[in-house]
Amino acid sequence: METSQFRGVIPPVVIPLTEKKSLDLEAFDRSINRMIDAGVDGLFFLGSSGEVAFLTDAQRYHVLQEAVAIVNGRVPVLAGIIDMETMRVIDQAKRAAGFGVDALVATAPFYALGGPKETERHFRAIREYTDLPLFAYDLPVCVHTKLDPDMLVRLGEDGVLQGVKDSSGDDVSFRWLVLENEDAGHPLQLLTGHEVVVDGAYLGGADGSVPGLANLDPAAYVAQWKAAQAGDWEKAKEIQDHLARLMFVTRRVKATVGFGAGVGAFKTALWQMGVFNTNQMREPVQPLEGEDVEAIVAILKKEGMLDPDAPVRA
Amino acid sequence: METSQFRGVIPPVVIPLTEKKSLDLEAFDRSINRMIDAGVDGLFFLGSSGEVAFLTDAQRYHVLQEAVAIVNGRVPVLAGIIDMETMRVIDQAKRAAGFGVDALVATAPFYALGGPKETERHFRAIREYTDLPLFAYDLPVCVHTKLDPDMLVRLGEDGVLQGVKDSSGDDVSFRWLVLENEDAGHPLQLLTGHEVVVDGAYLGGADGSVPGLANLDPAAYVAQWKAAQAGDWEKAKEIQDHLARLMFVTRRVKATVGFGAGVGAFKTALWQMGVFNTNQMREPVQPLEGEDVEAIVAILKKEGMLDPDAPVRA
Amino acid sequence: METSQFRGVIPPVVIPLTEKKSLDLEAFDRSINRMIDAGVDGLFFLGSSGEVAFLTDAQRYHVLQEAVAIVNGRVPVLAGIIDMETMRVIDQAKRAAGFGVDALVATAPFYALGGPKETERHFRAIREYTDLPLFAYDLPVCVHTKLDPDMLVRLGEDGVLQGVKDSSGDDVSFRWLVLENEDAGHPLQLLTGHEVVVDGAYLGGADGSVPGLANLDPAAYVAQWKAAQAGDWEKAKEIQDHLARLMFVTRRVKATVGFGAGVGAFKTALWQMGVFNTNQMREPVQPLEGEDVEAIVAILKKEGMLDPDAPVRA
Amino acid sequence: METSQFRGVIPPVVIPLTEKKSLDLEAFDRSINRMIDAGVDGLFFLGSSGEVAFLTDAQRYHVLQEAVAIVNGRVPVLAGIIDMETMRVIDQAKRAAGFGVDALVATAPFYALGGPKETERHFRAIREYTDLPLFAYDLPVCVHTKLDPDMLVRLGEDGVLQGVKDSSGDDVSFRWLVLENEDAGHPLQLLTGHEVVVDGAYLGGADGSVPGLANLDPAAYVAQWKAAQAGDWEKAKEIQDHLARLMFVTRRVKATVGFGAGVGAFKTALWQMGVFNTNQMREPVQPLEGEDVEAIVAILKKEGMLDPDAPVRA
Repeated sequence: METSQFRGVIPPVVIPLTEKKSLDLEAFDRSINRMIDAGVDGLFFLGSSGEVAFLTDAQRYHVLQEAVAIVNGRVPVLAGIIDMETMRVIDQAKRAAGFGVDALVATAPFYALGGPKETERHFRAIREYTDLPLFAYDLPVCVHTKLDPDMLVRLGEDGVLQGVKDSSGDDVSFRWLVLENEDAGHPLQLLTGHEVVVDGAYLGGADGSVPGLANLDPAAYVAQWKAAQAGDWEKAKEIQDHLARLMFVTRRVKATVGFGAGVGAFKTALWQMGVFNTNQMREPVQPLEGEDVEAIVAILKKEGMLDPDAPVRA
Repeated sequence: METSQFRGVIPPVVIPLTEKKSLDLEAFDRSINRMIDAGVDGLFFLGSSGEVAFLTDAQRYHVLQEAVAIVNGRVPVLAGIIDMETMRVIDQAKRAAGFGVDALVATAPFYALGGPKETERHFRAIREYTDLPLFAYDLPVCVHTKLDPDMLVRLGEDGVLQGVKDSSGDDVSFRWLVLENEDAGHPLQLLTGHEVVVDGAYLGGADGSVPGLANLDPAAYVAQWKAAQAGDWEKAKEIQDHLARLMFVTRRVKATVGFGAGVGAFKTALWQMGVFNTNQMREPVQPLEGEDVEAIVAILKKEGMLDPDAPVRA
Repeated sequence: METSQFRGVIPPVVIPLTEKKSLDLEAFDRSINRMIDAGVDGLFFLGSSGEVAFLTDAQRYHVLQEAVAIVNGRVPVLAGIIDMETMRVIDQAKRAAGFGVDALVATAPFYALGGPKETERHFRAIREYTDLPLFAYDLPVCVHTKLDPDMLVRLGEDGVLQGVKDSSGDDVSFRWLVLENEDAGHPLQLLTGHEVVVDGAYLGGADGSVPGLANLDPAAYVAQWKAAQAGDWEKAKEIQDHLARLMFVTRRVKATVGFGAGVGAFKTALWQMGVFNTNQMREPVQPLEGEDVEAIVAILKKEGMLDPDAPVRA
Repeated sequence: METSQFRGVIPPVVIPLTEKKSLDLEAFDRSINRMIDAGVDGLFFLGSSGEVAFLTDAQRYHVLQEAVAIVNGRVPVLAGIIDMETMRVIDQAKRAAGFGVDALVATAPFYALGGPKETERHFRAIREYTDLPLFAYDLPVCVHTKLDPDMLVRLGEDGVLQGVKDSSGDDVSFRWLVLENEDAGHPLQLLTGHEVVVDGAYLGGADGSVPGLANLDPAAYVAQWKAAQAGDWEKAKEIQDHLARLMFVTRRVKATVGFGAGVGAFKTALWQMGVFNTNQMREPVQPLEGEDVEAIVAILKKEGMLDPDAPVRA
């Protein structure tokens, strides 16, 4: 599989659960196929949206096993190997590799405090233990470290990193990363995880996106990528406006904050749209209910994702 | 002066000092005229880049007095009324108004801890004491409060705010602000202070920009705004790439961090370009020197802002 | 006035307002005298609890003028000279000095970002403009910079600082400051602003305290200081337990957060105790009401600060 | 094993490694026995200082197996079950229980963002899967959530928690926790992890301490606990001053920050004192060397932990 495959729209896959909080294989199959049929360029499992933090190791590898089987080579599969510090991440890397994934995605170390020396050494150490393409996942909101563009490009030039999934929310840093990567001969594939402003990221030179919201509307993200590739920026912008409004599903949640509001809203939307069978969440998060569900349904209808007359599923 | 004047490129003006750390009127005149001649749409004095925090009240009003005289009605003048809490801000508002400025710019209260109720009340209280157009300045890196888009639009609808200068670095929030402002009938002029990614902000619907970097290259920002207005996004992007690289002047500073590196680099660049006579800074910040100056000169040459053979001024 | 006077209990004075939000001189006089009669060792005006951020300059100097007149030399008067950056702080220092205060209290610069070089230079620059004893006010929750113990001791040894008011909430750093100050020959008077754990600070070697809560119960803090001086640690602890419970007045507020909850609760308590005539707050903060007032009254009764049968003032 | 055993001095055990970065069983045995012989009241394995974040699961359980064998029932063994979110923590709990430990220690969930609802549910969910005494580990510097005293006492009253290891650095919150726990009938054992100010915590009512520094000088912490129990606060303070100065080993490190400086300094000190055979660290952290080692040796000598003539081990 060539490097150039890791570009375009690569959604981080949200995991459907049954009422008993186990993996809902039927809905998982439906959602994956729906995204592949819409034309996505890859799928990323076990990311933050993919509940990686909430899954035991056994559950993580169950997800990977089923995912690889369902995808069946149609698009590249990226797997998150998220854990606290280097040797635990390497442990995850070794196991994920056994499931036939096409690339690995790792964050900086978290939990223990460290500095830039430790962060750089961390990625180099992972590389020593795996031959798979490795993406750095820049996610300071969870990891509490911002990855430095200079370091990332250096790791690209040294063959440590294949690319970066940037969910840092720091668009200035991302722009500098794009420019420095260009100056270095483009060693890294640069993917934005910033689903609300993908148009600007594409205009600035991103190689693709990893939008959680693409679980809800993969076709729109695919159309936007094609528009951007064709230089039709007005269309890319217009589609983005729709997607930014669709993202309001996560903004109108009142019952809780963080993951429960964000991924909780995605699951609730997918459930109301008939892609998922429930909006169940894993411990300690509770599924959304009542007025939060109603608010989400209203947004889905306004954005054309649900029939205006559709009843609220309960 | 109409509302519609507060759009386009409105640089926050960097203040030149003499070696004795007093306002350098000759350079101030030169820099302001250079920006107006380049076609900027307004000028913002006493912003963060304009040393507002470092000036005594007497020095602040000296700056305003000279600024209004030099500008002489050619473009609108916005004045920062930055202070710790509401009544101090109102005190600044009353005095600034006396100098004939066209609009005021205020942050959320800072120093004392507060919550969203206090932030909203703050802007409403300022409005009760002034008739000038009022912009909210969203600058969490200094103010430690992020302004909520819902609140901003509500304040726009209620006639409290004329617009927003968004230097929050939160491009998702800015996009939502743009959309909600649109839905409300566009009560607010929305200006991005995010000088490195202005192209994306324009594509997303910003009404203009407040780029500190425009002190160095006002013509480029003006050309970019015109390109964006004409829908020439490739050109807007190309200009932005140049400007993003020019911003490296602030990234390569080793001697210090924060304001001394950021505005310190701007002043050093303007000095080397002959616009300023020194790169002097106000207490407690020291001017850049030695290898930091050399690094800045190298970037200016690479980006065509200095003749390749120009010696380093000392 | 000798150095040794800046020790013991030095409350930061809370400001009573009339219903019209102006300084209530009658209550101000009563509250100051109540604290002096209780035996406090000094009074600190224009600190964070003293509304310094909320007062215009004219209001600040009105407070100082009245305060110095009421105190009338009975105890030393410390004055906060809180402003954004160095030259503004120096401006405040010059004016405060004219009112006959005995010492000045300054924070690190805030608003503009800086680093340790700028922080140290800031205090040195202030010293160049005043002969009054100068205290550093370590208050990262408002100022967003933690003062380094090594720097503080160095500034003490160099005659820049007279002492430190530590409201950092970092008791480890404070302990190290005490030890390093001791090793350097005790150049600094070290006062804790951590009103809930003063007993531990005294045991660890603090020279005194600056407890906002002493506005409510000055006699208890004075008794505690005497107990600590006498080595009666069990008594110091017992008094602290009462004071820590009394501090619950700030914890049970539901209407808002931050200053409005903290100083708002102090004012409400002083109002209910008959020391203040209102619990009025300055813009943009609103006074507490309803169940928040009732919760405060219940705590005051439980801690013996109000007669069990006292009605709630309204 | 009774509840009352979880009090007094319970060091979090630092892990010695061979040059090849594997568990050094000889040094592990020596260090554990040295602490038990000094009279500690319990030992805590797999805490932050115990490298829990850096160990694969296989390595974690190797540590527990050896630890339980070496301790051999002489003191209670507490085991950290630190992982990202609830079900992963429960997975760790089940496995740790199999090794015969006496209590479990869990943090709030980390990685995914959440709120207070999720935090409380997290501890309740863990309790549903284990019968062992459960301690909450309050460590916002790693976990980015501060545990609320009200919630902790509620969980104590409901039989969910046995106690709290407070490493929050928030001594005000800890004092309130002590008081509210007292009011509720003392359901929780409250242990401070704040090794530099244990005297104040004991005076304030802590049931014990979990000081990483006790790996270096367990006898001093044991003597301090006895002094505090006997009401000899001057002695408790004097011992604390020695320990606070000994903690300077972590303050004088220049090569790195965070865990590498903190636990890195502890390991270097134990190596120089002959308790450990190396100061090796796990990936991605590098062991201290050169002037950092020399600075640590100088402090150890000053504090009487090394013979003044001892050469620096290399």
